Amino acid sequence: MRMYDIIMKKRNGGELSKEEIDFFVEGYTKGEIPDYQVSALMMAIYFQKMNETETLNLTMAMAHSGDMLDLSRIKGVKVDKHSTGGVGDKTSLSLTPLVAACGVPVAKMSGRGLGHTGGTIDKLESFPGFTTSLSLDKFFENVNNVGVAIMGQTADLAPADKKLYALRDVTATVDNMSLIASSIMSKKLAAGADSIVLDVKTGSGAFMKSEEDAFALANEMVKIGRGAGRKTFAIVSDMDQPLGNAVGNILEVKEAIDTLKGKGPTDFVELVMTLGTKMLIAGGICEDDESAKKMLTNALESGAALKKLAEFVKAQGGDERYVYDTDLFPKAKFIVPVESPEEGYISHIECDEVGICSLMLGGGRETKDSVIDLAVGLYLTKKRGDYVKKGDILCYIHSDDESNIESVKDRFLKAYTFSAVSPEKTEMIKGII
Amino acid sequence: MRMYDIIMKKRNGGELSKEEIDFFVEGYTKGEIPDYQVSALMMAIYFQKMNETETLNLTMAMAHSGDMLDLSRIKGVKVDKHSTGGVGDKTSLSLTPLVAACGVPVAKMSGRGLGHTGGTIDKLESFPGFTTSLSLDKFFENVNNVGVAIMGQTADLAPADKKLYALRDVTATVDNMSLIASSIMSKKLAAGADSIVLDVKTGSGAFMKSEEDAFALANEMVKIGRGAGRKTFAIVSDMDQPLGNAVGNILEVKEAIDTLKGKGPTDFVELVMTLGTKMLIAGGICEDDESAKKMLTNALESGAALKKLAEFVKAQGGDERYVYDTDLFPKAKFIVPVESPEEGYISHIECDEVGICSLMLGGGRETKDSVIDLAVGLYLTKKRGDYVKKGDILCYIHSDDESNIESVKDRFLKAYTFSAVSPEKTEMIKGII
Repeated sequence: MRMYDIIMKKRNGGELSKEEIDFFVEGYTKGEIPDYQVSALMMAIYFQKMNETETLNLTMAMAHSGDMLDLSRIKGVKVDKHSTGGVGDKTSLSLTPLVAACGVPVAKMSGRGLGHTGGTIDKLESFPGFTTSLSLDKFFENVNNVGVAIMGQTADLAPADKKLYALRDVTATVDNMSLIASSIMSKKLAAGADSIVLDVKTGSGAFMKSEEDAFALANEMVKIGRGAGRKTFAIVSDMDQPLGNAVGNILEVKEAIDTLKGKGPTDFVELVMTLGTKMLIAGGICEDDESAKKMLTNALESGAALKKLAEFVKAQGGDERYVYDTDLFPKAKFIVPVESPEEGYISHIECDEVGICSLMLGGGRETKDSVIDLAVGLYLTKKRGDYVKKGDILCYIHSDDESNIESVKDRFLKAYTFSAVSPEKTEMIKGII
Repeated sequence: MRMYDIIMKKRNGGELSKEEIDFFVEGYTKGEIPDYQVSALMMAIYFQKMNETETLNLTMAMAHSGDMLDLSRIKGVKVDKHSTGGVGDKTSLSLTPLVAACGVPVAKMSGRGLGHTGGTIDKLESFPGFTTSLSLDKFFENVNNVGVAIMGQTADLAPADKKLYALRDVTATVDNMSLIASSIMSKKLAAGADSIVLDVKTGSGAFMKSEEDAFALANEMVKIGRGAGRKTFAIVSDMDQPLGNAVGNILEVKEAIDTLKGKGPTDFVELVMTLGTKMLIAGGICEDDESAKKMLTNALESGAALKKLAEFVKAQGGDERYVYDTDLFPKAKFIVPVESPEEGYISHIECDEVGICSLMLGGGRETKDSVIDLAVGLYLTKKRGDYVKKGDILCYIHSDDESNIESVKDRFLKAYTFSAVSPEKTEMIKGII
């Protein structure tokens, strides 16, 4: 078998066999096939696409390129959740203890990503003492005893995907549905969960700007998951404005805790409840949406979900008192209101721009070596559809550096569009697959 | 400027600017842009194509990536000729002295290619003593005094093309008209001739199998040549069967000499006369086809062309007696007839296969290090359209190794197709641009 023939076949619109896909993924992972042949193949795939079978085979080949986690030491049906990411996405922080409180074991291996704010691990480290440096034994023990554990990624999950993604990133071959879907799903499959619930975001703050693309990606991933024998659901959800009100690590942790206390922002609560419902069903805890919703509501109202978060934080060395008293968290030095420059309906929020504001404040990582300031961020008091008068407060900037406040304010205001008429209402949940 | 944006622009169907093309060609030649980005761009170009302006700009950028030869020390209009290559293509050997005898100065820098038989330099080295190791001074002196000189390529012509072609060759991005045309033309432009006559072959022995593709390539190259301010013509000619009767180095040299003596095979003579006509016009020697043909015929009939070959061979250290007595050339040890296995018209000759037979006999180079046996090859006595009886001789195999004769014979016979009806007559010259 020759890589040249594989490139040629795909270039000419042919279907790659499982053997051909295995050959190139293995050869590339081992360094036997050079970057320049793989980038040519990626560009050919960009133009000629891959069908369902090819996409599944590529995903499986990448999943098997490294460790395949064995979670069999954990009792019950393990459900993993994945979000394609967005601004103010603190979903895991509320959702994980909530479904764990309902009996779904959550075993998560996470890395630290780049982004507007830190990843879940960064946010959890807001709790003094919290650590993700667990041994595998301790990790399994915690999941079995507490119901939820999260550890730093020590295993070598889907190294082929890591190498391939880095190459695609510099050769303009990222945006192909099959390649995006197989990249995400290869890591999920390697991570060993029995069931997978996907949160595919769409809108100005999402990787998938259009709903059409978001649904296409969701479909592609669900097909892969099911094709690989895992129970899989996907939710397509709104990311055309920041999720909830808080953007920034500690601000988001507080909002997630508030949500477990029954005081979460409506849009965020709706998303958490929808994802939770599918996780309970995927985990075999409930049969249908109605019973799942009832169980989740009960876990919230009874305080069981909040208690689960406290147990989880404690089990990993964190100070659980912060769960019950969020005033203990440190605050930014400067909390500055941003006033509306005009009167009217907020018709659009350029969501990505709000994310960049958080980054400018020091709340996220631009490079792997960036140090995150956990206290900074933005707290939005007005969102799309709200009617504001000139001088009304749109948000509060939380900053530790007085010198950056004006530029963040400028950029923030540019992200807002006002109009005389009320904008069309958009749904938080666009669809469920 | 970033290579990433250039890839993305072309991927999305955009037109690359001169600056963008210069940026990537220069960066790639210097090793500042990695192979994997360039191969992705080549695949994007394969799918999105390049327009006339982009193709010209790419050609100019590659031509200027190395030395641009200055032929101004040669008197007259310098005309270069290029063939896209085929089986039994000894055209340069006859054509060069013929047009030189008519007053067109020919200054050729050549490399040794890979192929069914050797290149022009290998064939000329059949003359004992012939050398292409000339100083640049001697080279110019010979062109001015003799009218023709050929030297081994010492200049660094279009290094960007060399690097790019090697990359395209292993990434399935060779067959795009703009890229093929710019590859050929960048070297021609760098080689410094004022005018260029192109022989674009089509058929089973050519790179361009279909006439449509051959015309497309010819058009593309003519546009580049004219766009670069050089007088340019292209002939599209038949390569659906070997050119003339001889395939193999010395066999072809003899046939080329016979042609200068007025005893060449009809198809080959027609091609030489057509190319010669355009070279005389391109060189400003004649105004029209009719006067050019008359001049060429005169140079043949008077013996001037043959004499010019002898002068040329002598001026480069070769033994000119071989020109007048071709029996002096060494012969292969075994000359074995191949008989027709059936009766009928020869309806098709799989031309590439005859080339491979010559390669099997040792007449060509499979790798750069192959040593060529100049005496071996095939001499075809029957060609397409001929009616043969069972047992009629189709060709003679000239071999120096008895052990390979049977396998060559088998392969040769498989290249011939017979039919009860006479095949449609095909034209040697398909068109002139």
